[in-house]
Amino acid sequence: MAFHKIINDPVYGFITINDPLIQDIIAHPYFQRLRRIHQMAMAHLVYPGAVHTRLHHALGAYHLMQLALKELISKGVEITAEEQQAAQIAILLHDIGHGPFSHALESIMTKGMAHEQLSILLIDELNQEFGGKLELAKEIFNNRYHKKFLYQLISGQLDVDRMDYLTRDSFFTGVIEGAIGYDRIIKMLTVHEGELMVEEKGIYSIEKFLIARRLMYWQVYLHKTVLSAEQMLQRIIRRAKAIAAECDEPLRTFIHNRGENITLEQFCNMDDYDVLMAIKKWQHHTDQVLSILCKGIINRKLFKVRYMPEPANPALLKGLREEIMQQTGVSLSDAEWLAFDGVASSTTYNFEEDHIKIRFKDGTVSNITAVDNALINENVRGNVKKYYICSLRLG
Amino acid sequence: MAFHKIINDPVYGFITINDPLIQDIIAHPYFQRLRRIHQMAMAHLVYPGAVHTRLHHALGAYHLMQLALKELISKGVEITAEEQQAAQIAILLHDIGHGPFSHALESIMTKGMAHEQLSILLIDELNQEFGGKLELAKEIFNNRYHKKFLYQLISGQLDVDRMDYLTRDSFFTGVIEGAIGYDRIIKMLTVHEGELMVEEKGIYSIEKFLIARRLMYWQVYLHKTVLSAEQMLQRIIRRAKAIAAECDEPLRTFIHNRGENITLEQFCNMDDYDVLMAIKKWQHHTDQVLSILCKGIINRKLFKVRYMPEPANPALLKGLREEIMQQTGVSLSDAEWLAFDGVASSTTYNFEEDHIKIRFKDGTVSNITAVDNALINENVRGNVKKYYICSLRLG
Amino acid sequence: MAFHKIINDPVYGFITINDPLIQDIIAHPYFQRLRRIHQMAMAHLVYPGAVHTRLHHALGAYHLMQLALKELISKGVEITAEEQQAAQIAILLHDIGHGPFSHALESIMTKGMAHEQLSILLIDELNQEFGGKLELAKEIFNNRYHKKFLYQLISGQLDVDRMDYLTRDSFFTGVIEGAIGYDRIIKMLTVHEGELMVEEKGIYSIEKFLIARRLMYWQVYLHKTVLSAEQMLQRIIRRAKAIAAECDEPLRTFIHNRGENITLEQFCNMDDYDVLMAIKKWQHHTDQVLSILCKGIINRKLFKVRYMPEPANPALLKGLREEIMQQTGVSLSDAEWLAFDGVASSTTYNFEEDHIKIRFKDGTVSNITAVDNALINENVRGNVKKYYICSLRLG
Amino acid sequence: MAFHKIINDPVYGFITINDPLIQDIIAHPYFQRLRRIHQMAMAHLVYPGAVHTRLHHALGAYHLMQLALKELISKGVEITAEEQQAAQIAILLHDIGHGPFSHALESIMTKGMAHEQLSILLIDELNQEFGGKLELAKEIFNNRYHKKFLYQLISGQLDVDRMDYLTRDSFFTGVIEGAIGYDRIIKMLTVHEGELMVEEKGIYSIEKFLIARRLMYWQVYLHKTVLSAEQMLQRIIRRAKAIAAECDEPLRTFIHNRGENITLEQFCNMDDYDVLMAIKKWQHHTDQVLSILCKGIINRKLFKVRYMPEPANPALLKGLREEIMQQTGVSLSDAEWLAFDGVASSTTYNFEEDHIKIRFKDGTVSNITAVDNALINENVRGNVKKYYICSLRLG
Repeated sequence: MAFHKIINDPVYGFITINDPLIQDIIAHPYFQRLRRIHQMAMAHLVYPGAVHTRLHHALGAYHLMQLALKELISKGVEITAEEQQAAQIAILLHDIGHGPFSHALESIMTKGMAHEQLSILLIDELNQEFGGKLELAKEIFNNRYHKKFLYQLISGQLDVDRMDYLTRDSFFTGVIEGAIGYDRIIKMLTVHEGELMVEEKGIYSIEKFLIARRLMYWQVYLHKTVLSAEQMLQRIIRRAKAIAAECDEPLRTFIHNRGENITLEQFCNMDDYDVLMAIKKWQHHTDQVLSILCKGIINRKLFKVRYMPEPANPALLKGLREEIMQQTGVSLSDAEWLAFDGVASSTTYNFEEDHIKIRFKDGTVSNITAVDNALINENVRGNVKKYYICSLRLG
Repeated sequence: MAFHKIINDPVYGFITINDPLIQDIIAHPYFQRLRRIHQMAMAHLVYPGAVHTRLHHALGAYHLMQLALKELISKGVEITAEEQQAAQIAILLHDIGHGPFSHALESIMTKGMAHEQLSILLIDELNQEFGGKLELAKEIFNNRYHKKFLYQLISGQLDVDRMDYLTRDSFFTGVIEGAIGYDRIIKMLTVHEGELMVEEKGIYSIEKFLIARRLMYWQVYLHKTVLSAEQMLQRIIRRAKAIAAECDEPLRTFIHNRGENITLEQFCNMDDYDVLMAIKKWQHHTDQVLSILCKGIINRKLFKVRYMPEPANPALLKGLREEIMQQTGVSLSDAEWLAFDGVASSTTYNFEEDHIKIRFKDGTVSNITAVDNALINENVRGNVKKYYICSLRLG
Repeated sequence: MAFHKIINDPVYGFITINDPLIQDIIAHPYFQRLRRIHQMAMAHLVYPGAVHTRLHHALGAYHLMQLALKELISKGVEITAEEQQAAQIAILLHDIGHGPFSHALESIMTKGMAHEQLSILLIDELNQEFGGKLELAKEIFNNRYHKKFLYQLISGQLDVDRMDYLTRDSFFTGVIEGAIGYDRIIKMLTVHEGELMVEEKGIYSIEKFLIARRLMYWQVYLHKTVLSAEQMLQRIIRRAKAIAAECDEPLRTFIHNRGENITLEQFCNMDDYDVLMAIKKWQHHTDQVLSILCKGIINRKLFKVRYMPEPANPALLKGLREEIMQQTGVSLSDAEWLAFDGVASSTTYNFEEDHIKIRFKDGTVSNITAVDNALINENVRGNVKKYYICSLRLG
Repeated sequence: MAFHKIINDPVYGFITINDPLIQDIIAHPYFQRLRRIHQMAMAHLVYPGAVHTRLHHALGAYHLMQLALKELISKGVEITAEEQQAAQIAILLHDIGHGPFSHALESIMTKGMAHEQLSILLIDELNQEFGGKLELAKEIFNNRYHKKFLYQLISGQLDVDRMDYLTRDSFFTGVIEGAIGYDRIIKMLTVHEGELMVEEKGIYSIEKFLIARRLMYWQVYLHKTVLSAEQMLQRIIRRAKAIAAECDEPLRTFIHNRGENITLEQFCNMDDYDVLMAIKKWQHHTDQVLSILCKGIINRKLFKVRYMPEPANPALLKGLREEIMQQTGVSLSDAEWLAFDGVASSTTYNFEEDHIKIRFKDGTVSNITAVDNALINENVRGNVKKYYICSLRLG
């Protein structure tokens, strides 16, 4: 009897594992660690259901990869058993390099190292541990494999990563308008000259996918309160580094060494729990800025955010800081931690990246932005910026 | 104990009737007749789940009206008990004037009379029957009541009619990308200077609503096969009129008299069943055109549709007709019934109608098309046309 | 490129057709006719969403058959490509012999012939039409094939027919408590000594399935108002036969000939539309009983039903009939059509049929009723009867 | 404009807060702390979606209380505005006394104190903080208020607590067979002589509710792997206490002081994060038992569980322990921590508690177990026990 395990998933029903190697990768501590990293960092402070984990997302994307490969094979695209296994492993591990609170802390925790680079390092290590069985997965993940569409399924404007996170985040937040019809999109996939494309009948589903993504960005990922909490979280780590606040290992090394000389193992011992426990302690730190920020996160007393179409007037920021100085007694330089401006941006469609391509019945190919009556066309600003001011609420 | 009935609805869970007058209207034969009219005419030939009825849609829109009124009242908008009852009755009856297969046959069955006009006549009659208790409902329905927002909830670019049919049609077809987040939209409604508006936080939900509508039009309502079936249906009725084909009353009067001198009661005796039964019989009619069209509908042998960006080349149509003449032996004038061109169009946003208005926190008001980074802006073609050729499939 | 069609289904997402023969069977007029037969007869008078068709159910059961076969194959059960095709065809056609309003009229329209027998005749005919390609499907359908589990998937206490109708009827009525977790049940299926069994881990899902069925019977299929409408429908046909009421062909032959000498083709020309159109006409019939019954169905003025644990007291019935005679002026023998008693019954579990068997990890096999702490055990009455009186509501 | 906040919930759509006092209670750090306590402790190790929090459950139960009160009021039950507010507060706070990993650690962390007792203490404290405004909520929560049905909605065999946790746990695990039709049950509630009852029409929904609960217990809450993880978790805390393992405050006080002399504030500073961080550290503890248990939880290397109908044979346990001693080198007394037996039990229906009562249309009242053809009757064992052995997996 063949190897066969099923996992219940509220989003897709059941996820099937039918390959012992994949089962072993899932069972590996590096992968299990993703259970302790929230998929959506602090978004649950606004959407209480959004507490799902990176592990769940990785399994979901893996499931969609299975569906997509099956669909392409049924359409006559040649994909060997080895390539299937490798593509499934690659997507399973695509986020393995995420640290605590993923994107929210990415730029701060592991200076100069995106999670994709860490993923590559970790895939390398796992490859060694598994006796070279992840070689092809690595090649695909690094876009060095000749069947480009396999890479595009993992990383592109229409990859299974995005399909899963939009579907899953929409599901767990309860923002049902973010639902994307992933199954229809997958049914519309095709391969032409080695590239991933979409059949003509799928045009509206793709437009819908792009608009759902836009909606999820502004309504959820960049929701004022979420933005506030994540900015506060970043400042907590930065402040802790600045004052070399005490905490336990392995986080201590990161805070004190500024990310240098850190081993992969140390990195992998860290997750949301380490950071949140430090925050719980720092609530009582003698540094007032750190303490204010930490209490804010723990008790959900979040800074106020105002969005505006233009960069904030410096006078406005100055006024806020002065008020904060008066009411809390902090210095001006400290007040800058408690009132600050910034810019949030979201890309509905990246006109410079590889385009999403539509393959028509007559054999012609067109970018999604160039079809008749395209919704996403050169007149729509692909990238939208919103400026904001974020500041401590005063009594 | 108060009057209280509940109806199970797979879309909303439960629909509540808590007003005996409304219960009596629902129980009236004119309303019950809507059970025998498909909400989506022939769409079930492509989407087998789409067999829901006009009655179900009317109940659904009534439910959303209840929610919307409750929401507005909770925000301090003044709406009396009488106005609530009237608005609920008006939406319940908004489609009461639909004939067999609703929109698909509207222009043909009741020449020169849109279903809205028939709805007005029928509401009038019901008002008399119910001793004038529908007077206020009539005023609102006819947009003669001073609280304009009540009319806008029934008929406008953001009315509960559209909210229900998009939600319901998306549900029953299984095209989940058409889901619109009706509950969030309703939570975002507000009234300003007597007009229905949307709060700032609802912008993305409204954009999403418009895009979902666009998708539903092209993917469902104007799906090639649906278009084909509905064009065939129209031609069946037109041909039957042209040759005065025999059928039973009350349909006979419509077919033979061309819609003149028809009583409301005769109209109300007619539903999808009359038309479909006639089609079943006409399969065996001696008129070959009528017989071909009718067999096509009953056995789902539908004409082929090709969409094209420009009007069809006349030579193409001519070629098709000649082939049909050869293979079936019909005359040229008859072949014109079996191969024809046309244009389908869908309005993503009507820039000339009353705009959807956004009310910002600072008190300003803006059209949805004029907010920062509007997705639906002057560069998007509000109305999109697609030309088509529709013709009998040849062996 | 392989043959590949998809059908949207709100219940399962997508249903896939990947076999040209199956596509041809679906396209056949006999199968398309199932579009015009309601799956749940008159249940939509209580549950307005329950207007789905026999065709939709047949497609759904076919989809579950695909899943079940795939699951068994993945567990090492040997099933050839021919057997897969045949099992899929057999389930697709399992209800092909249903007449107008299916079960509600089964005993009356086609006297002495259950729909299963008609299905056999029709499968025979289709087999001839398709050049013998349905031979194996026939054998399986008739339980003459040596791999018994294939038959059990089509007809047994745990077949895909029941799984689909419970799932689908629960979905379209909105009675979500009827949901059965069909995907989990399918994942738990196994074959042992040629018989279909359930893995140990599936015990609770099976119990849940049986209880959901019990709930659906009493809450939906035998709901008082549904029972009333279906009893009225039966009496309409019986009365029409008794007085040889006029109507159009092909129904006329059935009404006047009492079902003798009817060709299969005549049978297949008949569907819900024929019966409902006759009812619309008979509203104005001179026979008062027929007219009362028909107006009741069309305008949803349904008879009152009272359930009771014991057979009704004859005096109660007599009293009701006398009142009806007084108020309507009908004779006593006619009053018996307008007030009558009967018994409804539902089988939670049939202890005499083939049992549902559980296969334990240690290799032992046990009936679901005999496992430890079985919910459905000898102490639960497998079959429950409820007596009722059904009578015209008087003013 | 009235106070009005909405919270997105994937389960119910939107939860509404329209009372500033309730908003303040939700914003209180004691309530926000529930964000850091998993609703289902370790169940996510089997059902990866089951990471929802106690806070989410409390909000959900509060939402169902709103619905239930509204329903009862619409049926003429007298409930004042103060009583509504109090009942809503009482349910919001019903779980406020839960400690880390709730039930899984309840008996161990706070010896001799159930979470309900701690909830009472905390409600008392909050009542003082809010100037006595929670007085009536307290009375209801403690079942000292004369309108008993308000207490029954909070704690009984059919309370909104159970309705929410079954609905929510079914949703997040993806075990859809656990869905209970909460909205129908609520529509069926009524009050008779001060007691909560269910209308006759709701019988099958209640049976379904009890069976769904039974299924959730055995399929989810007492799933072998979940049981294993939660037994390991308990032994970690017990072992840490036994050897006075070092960890940070506030957990340290609990571990070292055995729960004596602990302030409420100390208790409220503790949540899942404290315990999990200690476990992360103790992976490297010199005590081998503690280290094995902790590594098992963190890396999901869980003990093996076998269920059996009778208590385990002592010889079997002895054999397992000897093998463990051999392979790991631990002493016999330590091996008892790594291989042990126990009993799990689940109550489908408690025949000794207050019964669920059905009120019939004729005014009579009957226990759900005593209605005709009751599914849950004296022949069904209300409480089911399963014995198990749980032991370290050996290489």
